[in-house]
Amino acid sequence: MRAEILTIGDELCRGEIVDTNSSGLAARLWDLGITTRWMTSCCDDAQDITTALRQALARADVVVCSGGLGPTEDDLTVDVVSQLVGVEPVVDEPARERMAARFSNMVTPVQLRQVRVPGGARVYANPQGLAPGFEVVVGGISIFCMPGIPRELYGIFDTGLGVRLVELREAAGRVERIARQIYRVFGRGESQVSQACRGLVDHTAGASIHYQVKFPEVLVKLVVRDADQAAADARLAALDGELRTRLGESLYGTGDENLVARATRRLIASGKTLATAESCTGGMIGELVTQMPGSSRAFLGGAIVYSNAEKVRQLGVAQATLDRFGAVSEEIVREMATGARERFGTDLAVSVSGIAGPDGGTPEKPVGTVWLALADLGGVTTKKLFWPGLRDQIRTLSAWWALELVDNAL
Amino acid sequence: MRAEILTIGDELCRGEIVDTNSSGLAARLWDLGITTRWMTSCCDDAQDITTALRQALARADVVVCSGGLGPTEDDLTVDVVSQLVGVEPVVDEPARERMAARFSNMVTPVQLRQVRVPGGARVYANPQGLAPGFEVVVGGISIFCMPGIPRELYGIFDTGLGVRLVELREAAGRVERIARQIYRVFGRGESQVSQACRGLVDHTAGASIHYQVKFPEVLVKLVVRDADQAAADARLAALDGELRTRLGESLYGTGDENLVARATRRLIASGKTLATAESCTGGMIGELVTQMPGSSRAFLGGAIVYSNAEKVRQLGVAQATLDRFGAVSEEIVREMATGARERFGTDLAVSVSGIAGPDGGTPEKPVGTVWLALADLGGVTTKKLFWPGLRDQIRTLSAWWALELVDNAL
Repeated sequence: MRAEILTIGDELCRGEIVDTNSSGLAARLWDLGITTRWMTSCCDDAQDITTALRQALARADVVVCSGGLGPTEDDLTVDVVSQLVGVEPVVDEPARERMAARFSNMVTPVQLRQVRVPGGARVYANPQGLAPGFEVVVGGISIFCMPGIPRELYGIFDTGLGVRLVELREAAGRVERIARQIYRVFGRGESQVSQACRGLVDHTAGASIHYQVKFPEVLVKLVVRDADQAAADARLAALDGELRTRLGESLYGTGDENLVARATRRLIASGKTLATAESCTGGMIGELVTQMPGSSRAFLGGAIVYSNAEKVRQLGVAQATLDRFGAVSEEIVREMATGARERFGTDLAVSVSGIAGPDGGTPEKPVGTVWLALADLGGVTTKKLFWPGLRDQIRTLSAWWALELVDNAL
Repeated sequence: MRAEILTIGDELCRGEIVDTNSSGLAARLWDLGITTRWMTSCCDDAQDITTALRQALARADVVVCSGGLGPTEDDLTVDVVSQLVGVEPVVDEPARERMAARFSNMVTPVQLRQVRVPGGARVYANPQGLAPGFEVVVGGISIFCMPGIPRELYGIFDTGLGVRLVELREAAGRVERIARQIYRVFGRGESQVSQACRGLVDHTAGASIHYQVKFPEVLVKLVVRDADQAAADARLAALDGELRTRLGESLYGTGDENLVARATRRLIASGKTLATAESCTGGMIGELVTQMPGSSRAFLGGAIVYSNAEKVRQLGVAQATLDRFGAVSEEIVREMATGARERFGTDLAVSVSGIAGPDGGTPEKPVGTVWLALADLGGVTTKKLFWPGLRDQIRTLSAWWALELVDNAL
């Protein structure tokens, strides 16, 4: 079953607000086994709305609209849809009664505009606001209209309209079940990952593979569709092992939890404590760890040592080591991590020192050179990165690698 | 001049990511005097992309596309557009050279896909990534294509493509000049700001005012359109003083520079040095300051003191003060800032301690209670915030307020 989503509003076309309704509706439809093929936004213009609806009716099995159901003259959806169906707008009595109760019976004609629906439409109550949702059928295809305010939209969807969509999907006999899994990869680029996965799903019916870059990680999404859920699940399971083999060590997890959340969650659960010693990341590792509520149970604090003098003062790094190897070196991150672990008295300490650019690079240590170290009871592990990207990318990648070291040490 | 925006990607249609590119492009086009009439999103499907492009060509004066320019087989934009124009895709030599330089000449055929453009296309260099933007003309109408990664998209737009759009607009004979100014407001919400500005532009021809929330700041955009640039500029200038009066102290600047960049730039220019002492922000202030290249000249380092013991050890906060007033108190942030200034030996030190939630609130100190202090040669300034929002909002707002204190102290 293919859907088209239509969002209506001048403020969308001027770019004043981001259209989160389209993605929110698409995700809900996807969960119901309905595929969104098109998403269209247009202005508060009767002709444009009509054009968009006609076009959607010509290529989709169901049309889901948001916006244009307010009280002002800009709000045209009820009138346009009524005209398309060939009916007059009527006041929806239950919605009018709720409005009257809310406004102590002082309902103005302008406000009444908001509780109109096309005559004969199926109405969906709005548990969060005034304007009801409704459904009309044109040429056998349902058009659903809801207000653009997200909480009203989702309120209507979740309390009735979604159920109706499932009915329609089943009536259409296109009962397509979906099995899916998200694989999270860190340390390899999208092109390497897609190359590793090439051909994986070629001989599996209904299977597809998708990639999404969420710098610095790459998400691999494996999807199998079938009329039967168990069959879809089984074919997904059959692909799982091979995909894991191909992704190798760069696969760090599955599902919705990213590396930062995973490392922090596991750290808290372990009962161990952590300190950070940051140079080029400037506090980013601490900031990432403390995004999670409850991180104070594991994260005691950190030293941001942007200057060399602070590396000496706060962490006890030896001036002689700085002089001999430079601030961006294996020896320095080793002393930073060891020093942080001792001074903060933590189980783990992670350190980073690198050249984030755009200036400061040399032929021996170009921009993008980063050293990391993790100190724990067992000793110190170090890692060198070289990723000649932009300043913020180098910093983000470094902070994520620091958390990868923490995650590995747990 | 009417534009259609087309965003391409399966992840959009599955609702996995919110399409921020459409609104970002629509806002930029609007700023250039180009009205977006339609925004369409479709899947990574050659037939659907072709249909969407044909439809856009039939109703718009210019078509702006994002997405589908990656290295994988999902990425179809170059091939689809080439076929539409009737040419073959070719490798863009400058983009290939940049790619080769970045990957030390180890470029795979898969990666080469990313630097292809339709033969004969006008190419727009990508200052932020690998895939170049390009322009083809079909039936007299330009189609612009850019990668879907926002910073690459805006990088290409802002360094060349936008200028070309202005050329096209002027060539179309619709010479509408625009005078505009962005006013940046911090410390007031959108509804307060819009109320303060109510009616400002009502009696000025061609003037309009728009609001954009970029948490934690609000941007107010004042625009005046006229056939004559000088007339537009004059009417904008006439409104400027009144708008500044209405925004009052919450107006901190104009143009593209946000509060973080402004404070850091001014700090570096002042020749003064800064240290940070962070509790609930966990390193965010340091991270924000070090986003700017050259910040090492001013920012020596910071202490992330998530635990009370670390507040004592790293900053010399008195245990008696902690016992008496608690960690989130004016007294503690005062001692944190003073201690940081002394120990780091800096001109300025800024400190923050607060309850970011969701747990940890009490009736006396509910979630959202934050204390800040700034120490300099003249003494210590403190500030209390109360903003009962989400954890990440409270942290971000706190870090911005810390930089506001730094900015004020300069």
